[in-house]
Amino acid sequence: MDFASELRAHVSRAEQGIERLLPPAAEPSARLHEAMRYSMQAGGKRLRPVLVLASSGLFGDRRADPVAAAVAVECVHTYSLVHDDLPCMDDDDLRRGRPTAHRAFDEATALLAGDALLTRAFAILAECYGADPGLAAALVRELADAAGSRRLIAGQMEDLLAEGRGDADPQALRFIHLNKTAAMVEASLAMGGLCGGAPTDASDGLREAGRRLGLAFQIIDDVLDATSDTATLGKTAGKDARAGKATVVSVHGIDAARAMARELSDGAVGALRALPGDTSFLVALAGSLLSRTH
Amino acid sequence: MDFASELRAHVSRAEQGIERLLPPAAEPSARLHEAMRYSMQAGGKRLRPVLVLASSGLFGDRRADPVAAAVAVECVHTYSLVHDDLPCMDDDDLRRGRPTAHRAFDEATALLAGDALLTRAFAILAECYGADPGLAAALVRELADAAGSRRLIAGQMEDLLAEGRGDADPQALRFIHLNKTAAMVEASLAMGGLCGGAPTDASDGLREAGRRLGLAFQIIDDVLDATSDTATLGKTAGKDARAGKATVVSVHGIDAARAMARELSDGAVGALRALPGDTSFLVALAGSLLSRTH
Repeated sequence: MDFASELRAHVSRAEQGIERLLPPAAEPSARLHEAMRYSMQAGGKRLRPVLVLASSGLFGDRRADPVAAAVAVECVHTYSLVHDDLPCMDDDDLRRGRPTAHRAFDEATALLAGDALLTRAFAILAECYGADPGLAAALVRELADAAGSRRLIAGQMEDLLAEGRGDADPQALRFIHLNKTAAMVEASLAMGGLCGGAPTDASDGLREAGRRLGLAFQIIDDVLDATSDTATLGKTAGKDARAGKATVVSVHGIDAARAMARELSDGAVGALRALPGDTSFLVALAGSLLSRTH
Repeated sequence: MDFASELRAHVSRAEQGIERLLPPAAEPSARLHEAMRYSMQAGGKRLRPVLVLASSGLFGDRRADPVAAAVAVECVHTYSLVHDDLPCMDDDDLRRGRPTAHRAFDEATALLAGDALLTRAFAILAECYGADPGLAAALVRELADAAGSRRLIAGQMEDLLAEGRGDADPQALRFIHLNKTAAMVEASLAMGGLCGGAPTDASDGLREAGRRLGLAFQIIDDVLDATSDTATLGKTAGKDARAGKATVVSVHGIDAARAMARELSDGAVGALRALPGDTSFLVALAGSLLSRTH
């Protein structure tokens, strides 16, 4: 299968899982379930669930079906976007080309829908992997650590504080990128590895690849925010500059930022190639993320 | 041991667990960890963790130490209060006699600290019960279901919608109480039972007792909101009437509300007495909740 077809197949598998594993919109509280589904159906690249599925496939999906883990990761990612878009955070009107959740519903509903997506992620893991509780517990731990106050949320908090300070400390910027973005990319590959039955040394390689891929991804995000337009991105462009926010672009310039992203992506490809199984899809995915336009 | 001493012992055990299982305030993101600790250290009755510990003790704590489960439950309860107090929800300045988290810090920090407490709850369960993954997975499932979009968050969403409508549908009110309040009380007793090694039929009894106790607790809350003052409650009094909110008090009157709480509490005591072990502490706790003044 070529890269584009394989990507479509993974996305389709993840989206069927989302449809199946979120509570029906008609069930009470209907408004809450509508807002959860609105946020999750809003499309996007589905990068993290695709990483879970592709990573699990490297090991022949030997231990368990990875779809539920992929959906759990996307629930956590989506909750973080919904809360990040709220007026007290980035105050954004547009996400994935549609009104943000608090614009389509209201602030309270968006807050609660985000809370509910985060909670649902853990319910999905405990429910769907209940037959292999060792796997369920390992997946919960991996996801909770990546999404927790030392990683994802630490990155969001420090990002916000750095914006207020307007400083350009490269160390602080790296902390933010490692945690706000790379943590969930690492966890996606690691959770796929758990479902696939990866041996411990492969887990380390998956994490290493995820870290570099996540850092490259965030730098490209910053480049696109500075160089692209809102219609292409499906979210507000030029935000970083307007917020006076220190990014890799503002600190090092566009060309150096692109070079850093390429170097990180090459490092990720090196780590991927050292893994067992057919890594060609993941290698191609790394390349496509580097040259993406949205 | 008399009731007051046993209560103090449970509270102290839970608070030592909180101190041990939350990230240190000095660790990055320091502001986030400070806000998490501020919210968790703010005291309160510690009802839910006490229920976990007492319930586990009925079965001799046979399976595992229940302290981590007690802390996880309190993390979820506290996150729900922090988010509930935000301007887009109840917009409250006072909680447990101190400024609410968004007043002591700011809205974004309170939002993220709430998110982090919810996430930490699941990390604690997966980490601390990792040696018994069957128990870890069962605890995650119990907590995620009780705190999820069909229960705790459904109750909060419908509570908010009912406030907007100002209607007084007793069915809608029951849905809100069952989910906003009783769900986490049920889960506390059930999770204690899991740690204690309770047989399945005892789990059903624990849930039944929790449901009635939770409903009684919420009715007393509504009575106190209508009859007590802010200084005694440690949170803003008279909110329901000002918000034009339908409560058991506004629908049935104070006396009928008190009678309903007593009947539910008696039902809870009946369900507790049918459990194995020495239930005298839990029975006394039910009595003290009925006659509480804050």
